[in-house]
Amino acid sequence: MKLSQSGIGTMRVNNLDEMYPVQDILLQSGQLVQYGTGIYAYSNIVMLVKRTLERIIEEELNKVGCIEVQLPTLQPDSIWKKSGRWDKYIEEGLMLTVESDKGTYCMAPTAEEAVVEFAREKLKSYKHIPVTYYQIGEKYRNEIRTRGYLLRGKSFLMMDAYSFDSDLAGLEESYKKVREAYLKIAERVGLKIIPVVADNGSMGGKKSEEFMFISPIGEDTILYDEKSETALNTEILEKENYQEYLKEEYGIEDISKYSKTKAIELGHIFQLGTKYSESMNVKFIDKDGKEKPFYMGCYGIGVSRLLAAIYENSVIKDENGKVMGFSLPKELAPYKLQIIPKMENEEKLKQAFELYEKMNGKAIIDDREGISLGAKIKDCKILGTPYMAILGDKVEDGKVELENTKTGEKQILSIEEVVKMI
Amino acid sequence: MKLSQSGIGTMRVNNLDEMYPVQDILLQSGQLVQYGTGIYAYSNIVMLVKRTLERIIEEELNKVGCIEVQLPTLQPDSIWKKSGRWDKYIEEGLMLTVESDKGTYCMAPTAEEAVVEFAREKLKSYKHIPVTYYQIGEKYRNEIRTRGYLLRGKSFLMMDAYSFDSDLAGLEESYKKVREAYLKIAERVGLKIIPVVADNGSMGGKKSEEFMFISPIGEDTILYDEKSETALNTEILEKENYQEYLKEEYGIEDISKYSKTKAIELGHIFQLGTKYSESMNVKFIDKDGKEKPFYMGCYGIGVSRLLAAIYENSVIKDENGKVMGFSLPKELAPYKLQIIPKMENEEKLKQAFELYEKMNGKAIIDDREGISLGAKIKDCKILGTPYMAILGDKVEDGKVELENTKTGEKQILSIEEVVKMI
Repeated sequence: MKLSQSGIGTMRVNNLDEMYPVQDILLQSGQLVQYGTGIYAYSNIVMLVKRTLERIIEEELNKVGCIEVQLPTLQPDSIWKKSGRWDKYIEEGLMLTVESDKGTYCMAPTAEEAVVEFAREKLKSYKHIPVTYYQIGEKYRNEIRTRGYLLRGKSFLMMDAYSFDSDLAGLEESYKKVREAYLKIAERVGLKIIPVVADNGSMGGKKSEEFMFISPIGEDTILYDEKSETALNTEILEKENYQEYLKEEYGIEDISKYSKTKAIELGHIFQLGTKYSESMNVKFIDKDGKEKPFYMGCYGIGVSRLLAAIYENSVIKDENGKVMGFSLPKELAPYKLQIIPKMENEEKLKQAFELYEKMNGKAIIDDREGISLGAKIKDCKILGTPYMAILGDKVEDGKVELENTKTGEKQILSIEEVVKMI
Repeated sequence: MKLSQSGIGTMRVNNLDEMYPVQDILLQSGQLVQYGTGIYAYSNIVMLVKRTLERIIEEELNKVGCIEVQLPTLQPDSIWKKSGRWDKYIEEGLMLTVESDKGTYCMAPTAEEAVVEFAREKLKSYKHIPVTYYQIGEKYRNEIRTRGYLLRGKSFLMMDAYSFDSDLAGLEESYKKVREAYLKIAERVGLKIIPVVADNGSMGGKKSEEFMFISPIGEDTILYDEKSETALNTEILEKENYQEYLKEEYGIEDISKYSKTKAIELGHIFQLGTKYSESMNVKFIDKDGKEKPFYMGCYGIGVSRLLAAIYENSVIKDENGKVMGFSLPKELAPYKLQIIPKMENEEKLKQAFELYEKMNGKAIIDDREGISLGAKIKDCKILGTPYMAILGDKVEDGKVELENTKTGEKQILSIEEVVKMI
């Protein structure tokens, strides 16, 4: 990307929001643009980081045999009335609904109903299962308590998966596979994500786990033991005889090691059992010729939240400990290298464009006129590019000063060495 | 993809819709699932073909320097009131609106208003332009005349781009670049797409072109000359002295070569001029220090329609000329090869899985139990896989019968030869 053609001017970042300083940098620098409470546009880099997250999620889910599909976002009320959840959602006031002369619709807050209808058409026999369908798509909520820009908006990107099995043992198996994919995803995006056995909320299943990212901006509180890197749901403390329960269920004899910690819920997995299959009457013919309800599981990843967590985790600070920008992980950054030439030096500029061409779409060149080298370096850190190549007076022709924006480590390298390394 | 884990049973296709036989195959075979008028879910393959189209569009737009972003789909009425288009859209009854205690929103039918607000934050000086922003995202319409499944739905995928320039000459330049990308996209997806100078509709600009795909299911009528592969808008015939106009504007002396032909509108480009910049009061400071309105262009591609056109173009027929399925172009097919082993032959099955592993995610293996080889071959053609590898009794061990599903051409090849070729 040529910055001169990107619509990015010098970015100014001041007086950061005390609660959400990291996301406030994105907002102040114009990488997020707000249109109303909980409604944002994403600039090029933020959007592309999100897309990389989508690709990683897809790759890991495909590896365990999940099948990606696309369910409708605009959903007729009829399917929600079959499951009996329409009135409940309406009462809670959390659904965004659309009235038209052709009927009443909602903007999907989740897709259990839609996927069960999808299965009705397809999974008629035991021969067609097990199968786990998933999609990555925008979800909508009439959110009153919007929070932290990307954390809780009126619209948010979700991966939602749904498994269909013939019995509980099959469901346990499907559940295990998706759980395994979740842990791989966490590893690939470089976040320490802790599974916590959770309460079920309104999904109405039997067993569920939340996947938590420890962060001061999280709106959940968990009981976390740093040493063992394990966590418990605080609801456990409300149980009668919770100490006995902990011993029996988790083998934990001493909970004093666990302390209350803020966390962001990034993922959630549920064993739904036969709830939706029964209420919506979608069944399959088993080997014995009898009609039976599916055992379903449902699995979510908050992709917008994951994006927020990635930025939280990529923060770089100045010498006074003040948040100054980001250094995105190389695997997630859409542009790995930001090339900053001294514009007045024709030879350097020529070499900078050579390097830019060789990076084949994976670099940003800061070819903006009338902006100082210092300001350009600052902007690079606001955009989060992991490496910065400066072609200024300090280095001889054909060489660049390469800086790792995370560690601050600098090296003098030739153009070929830079291309090879990045 | 293992068909045994995909939720795909034997597909039955009968009595095709006379108007839309091609898309009806998708519906009857469960590759599209309908939820209501103009509302569909996409199965794995259809969704992945669509995604490939998105990637091609992005690559070509990026090549000419366009910048991809993501604008909000849920849009507050306030931005539409600034441009004065809210009342107009409401009166026409084509906007899907969402009422909540927090305000009134619409599900974006288009994004001129949203992108102008995006620009307001960013493009403050002549130094920041020219720039062309684009996004690929779902759009919504309270469509009454839904048509042809993917052609005109309540929700549809669009690429929408918006250029910002300081003057008309700049706009012409930006327009030319996007137009060039459009023609490249048409070439890469293998469709003959004809640009037609068009009337402006409700967008309100000065110059516009439509990109048409000749097809009997199209709802537009154009004047088409097969020999020169050029076309004219039929509205020209309504002009007074249209013959003189044609001579002057297009150098056409004889229009008798042009005959009325049905076509699908796949793309549309407009020179908007200063309309939105003026009405929404979003301006930039020019070199002379004066505030000036942007010259804008807007550019759309109907990605769902493009998908429909791809399927129309990929039809294969049986010996009686009856539509029986598809053979997707290799470049667009998510799975290039469908492997069909004789399930009862252990050695063949083993070899089939070897080939499947070597294809590294780019193949489908039809490992479904209890379905005949003949039915599997039929299903392959319904899924649209361009090549089919049969491991049956006809060929010796280690060999496969490879069929090009488009041409019907067959070859006996070794597993290594198949991997290399595809």
